[in-house]
Amino acid sequence: MNNFVSMKEMSAIQIHQLLKTASDIERNGVSPLSEQLFAANLFFEPSTRTKMSFVVAEKKLGLEVLDFDAGSSSLQKGESVYDTAKTLESIGANLLVVRHPVANQVQQLAKQLTIPVINAGDGAGEHPTQCLLDLYTMYQEFQSFQGLNVLIVGDVVHSRVARSNAYALKTLGANVYFSSKPQWQDAELDFPYLDLDEAIEMCDVVMLLRIQLERHEENTVLDQDSYLAKYGLTIERERKMKDHAIILHPAPVNRGIEIADQLVECERSRIFTQMKNGVTTRMAVIQQLLQSGGTTHVNHFNQFEANFR
Amino acid sequence: MNNFVSMKEMSAIQIHQLLKTASDIERNGVSPLSEQLFAANLFFEPSTRTKMSFVVAEKKLGLEVLDFDAGSSSLQKGESVYDTAKTLESIGANLLVVRHPVANQVQQLAKQLTIPVINAGDGAGEHPTQCLLDLYTMYQEFQSFQGLNVLIVGDVVHSRVARSNAYALKTLGANVYFSSKPQWQDAELDFPYLDLDEAIEMCDVVMLLRIQLERHEENTVLDQDSYLAKYGLTIERERKMKDHAIILHPAPVNRGIEIADQLVECERSRIFTQMKNGVTTRMAVIQQLLQSGGTTHVNHFNQFEANFR
Amino acid sequence: MNNFVSMKEMSAIQIHQLLKTASDIERNGVSPLSEQLFAANLFFEPSTRTKMSFVVAEKKLGLEVLDFDAGSSSLQKGESVYDTAKTLESIGANLLVVRHPVANQVQQLAKQLTIPVINAGDGAGEHPTQCLLDLYTMYQEFQSFQGLNVLIVGDVVHSRVARSNAYALKTLGANVYFSSKPQWQDAELDFPYLDLDEAIEMCDVVMLLRIQLERHEENTVLDQDSYLAKYGLTIERERKMKDHAIILHPAPVNRGIEIADQLVECERSRIFTQMKNGVTTRMAVIQQLLQSGGTTHVNHFNQFEANFR
Repeated sequence: MNNFVSMKEMSAIQIHQLLKTASDIERNGVSPLSEQLFAANLFFEPSTRTKMSFVVAEKKLGLEVLDFDAGSSSLQKGESVYDTAKTLESIGANLLVVRHPVANQVQQLAKQLTIPVINAGDGAGEHPTQCLLDLYTMYQEFQSFQGLNVLIVGDVVHSRVARSNAYALKTLGANVYFSSKPQWQDAELDFPYLDLDEAIEMCDVVMLLRIQLERHEENTVLDQDSYLAKYGLTIERERKMKDHAIILHPAPVNRGIEIADQLVECERSRIFTQMKNGVTTRMAVIQQLLQSGGTTHVNHFNQFEANFR
Repeated sequence: MNNFVSMKEMSAIQIHQLLKTASDIERNGVSPLSEQLFAANLFFEPSTRTKMSFVVAEKKLGLEVLDFDAGSSSLQKGESVYDTAKTLESIGANLLVVRHPVANQVQQLAKQLTIPVINAGDGAGEHPTQCLLDLYTMYQEFQSFQGLNVLIVGDVVHSRVARSNAYALKTLGANVYFSSKPQWQDAELDFPYLDLDEAIEMCDVVMLLRIQLERHEENTVLDQDSYLAKYGLTIERERKMKDHAIILHPAPVNRGIEIADQLVECERSRIFTQMKNGVTTRMAVIQQLLQSGGTTHVNHFNQFEANFR
Repeated sequence: MNNFVSMKEMSAIQIHQLLKTASDIERNGVSPLSEQLFAANLFFEPSTRTKMSFVVAEKKLGLEVLDFDAGSSSLQKGESVYDTAKTLESIGANLLVVRHPVANQVQQLAKQLTIPVINAGDGAGEHPTQCLLDLYTMYQEFQSFQGLNVLIVGDVVHSRVARSNAYALKTLGANVYFSSKPQWQDAELDFPYLDLDEAIEMCDVVMLLRIQLERHEENTVLDQDSYLAKYGLTIERERKMKDHAIILHPAPVNRGIEIADQLVECERSRIFTQMKNGVTTRMAVIQQLLQSGGTTHVNHFNQFEANFR
């Protein structure tokens, strides 16, 4: 693995290796690095969770963090993303974490650089580390993906989270279903769309999506109450879920729109567990990338490998 | 002490313990942490001094710093302060430092989280760490608060600094007086208002307040020269101060408005000493919070305790 | 050396010492600090390269980094640059790196503070660390400046890079030539202006300048293609350069304006090498400043000195 930019291209074995690495890290922690390494975070879109999660993951691995603030950078002087990234590579970054508003931009960049690149979300494209933490949370719960019924609910067409999860879950043998208002269905994703009230009774995982108003072209005016009643997770619907079924949401949550306010921290909600798992799974991704980054990085992680074999 | 959000609720003993801890840190330094801990700074209002002071304090204690930039965060996507704070807790923050433009918001937050919260200023509410550094600076000078005459001058009604200091100084046995233009008096604070020219001659500490133009509802137009002459610390007034009396100001100073430009770094000014003391006192607060944060934190500070007993 | 604010005042010996220190650092690395020291970066203008380069340099030297964000600071409350800098000094900064939009502002500040100050660019004034990395890159190539023909091309009058390089190269015995459209010549710099097509054939170093549109008073409208053809480095011109001649550019590059897009990463381009060298040379500057910062700093660098003698 030289980069981590898309779930679509990952095999089941590769995904399971990452989940195993995350699990090992959670159980045993990590050993200190033998050399000073730098991770640079380039976020061209707002982010709390993902950015902070990467920072914590990097610091827990012992990396130095370069925090690139797109707002006060030379991008304001018209510099291209490639030149900015190449600059960070030149001044010593050993790893790049990139979020960009345009789909496929991060994948492009990964091909042009020699250091490993992690996709932290590319427009409506993919969000592979979010997917990995979702998978890890499901795996903790069910210990298997085979035949797991996962319902992805909401603003599918604008959601990189939906896309990454649908690809990966299919690869892992789960059954993926969507439920969404007709305008927000995505014709490119070949999965069945179900009626929410019927689907909710048979699924093991209900994954709610954030309504990505910032990516809607027209100014969507939402009647919040009626949206929740028609397409969201109400208290009534939650009561019809299977006993063991869990609720996921990538957050930030629009409380009272995608999900009833009281359900955000209810017993079946794993929303804040997902955030915790985000740190562990991102540590796993970074560790694997630095280990496989050619001879220059292999040695720094001898101790890691010793631990994890 | 589980949180540090208000001086109003602190006893004299609690305050003296914090001052003693600060003094020990200044004399003996601190021991390294035995474990990696994260402090997250959430500033929803501009700040140089307080924010940087916390960063330095945290790094001197050996904490990892998570610097949350409200401008480029998911708050722009409409996320609530609670959800943002809860996110930081979930991804591993062991301590939260929060500044917020609305009074009482930080105190609310502290009740909802399990990790310790420090109030770095809540609107026109309180600013307890600023107060603590003011107290420390006075204590260095006079070794006691009993009967100390402290005059607080300026924009009282908009000042969280005035409020925190008035509460704490009263608790500690000092005499607190205010002087302010009539519109800026605060009816809720039950302390005597004095004429500036008379009061200046009998006080041991003259604490100037910043005019908080950013919190004034109407656009206050200040005639700077006439404000200084009527309500500020002019050179003439400074000459009438007691020999041992000192000048404090929480800064940033509006030079030539609250205080004559030449007095900012005069012999009796402790303005830059206050900043230095801000680091030490914040270290004391953080150390006490992490020590008393239940069994999970106690052990990391064994060495601290050994040093300070 | 107490500050590093201008190349104009540096002697050839001082410059060579810095280049030697950089070269030693590149070859041998650095020893860990014996004490926690803080570097504060104050950037009042956008920057990617320079700011990140300083951060990496500081972290490689083992310094703690205070990242001052001018946008969310008390400057918004009207605080002066001096008061901001003095604040950082008071809370424990051992070194200040300052970029400011007004020429000579950083030099002024350096005189008012007791800690060392590094000029990271002062308006159209100077940019001494950029100059030092340019010199280091030339020195790596030619091992001498004596008689070296250096052509500086472009927006001379708005360029602090041109100014710092012209001063330093003259001090070091190189021949400095300018080439620029007539409106962008700088009457204050007493160096010959040459025709680009003639000069390009005889120079060892072609240093392109960035067009500093952000410092132009009138809104310059550039016909990009015709600018490149008339005043930029086209492929035709590059072909006429001496075999061993190299291309420099301080970046960010306006691709297709100052230089043909395909030449940015061509064989004679040292543009990304310059960025790499920026870290090493900034480490050299910081190390020398902390070593010569009086008795309080000398001891922390004993090990450095031992290494570099």
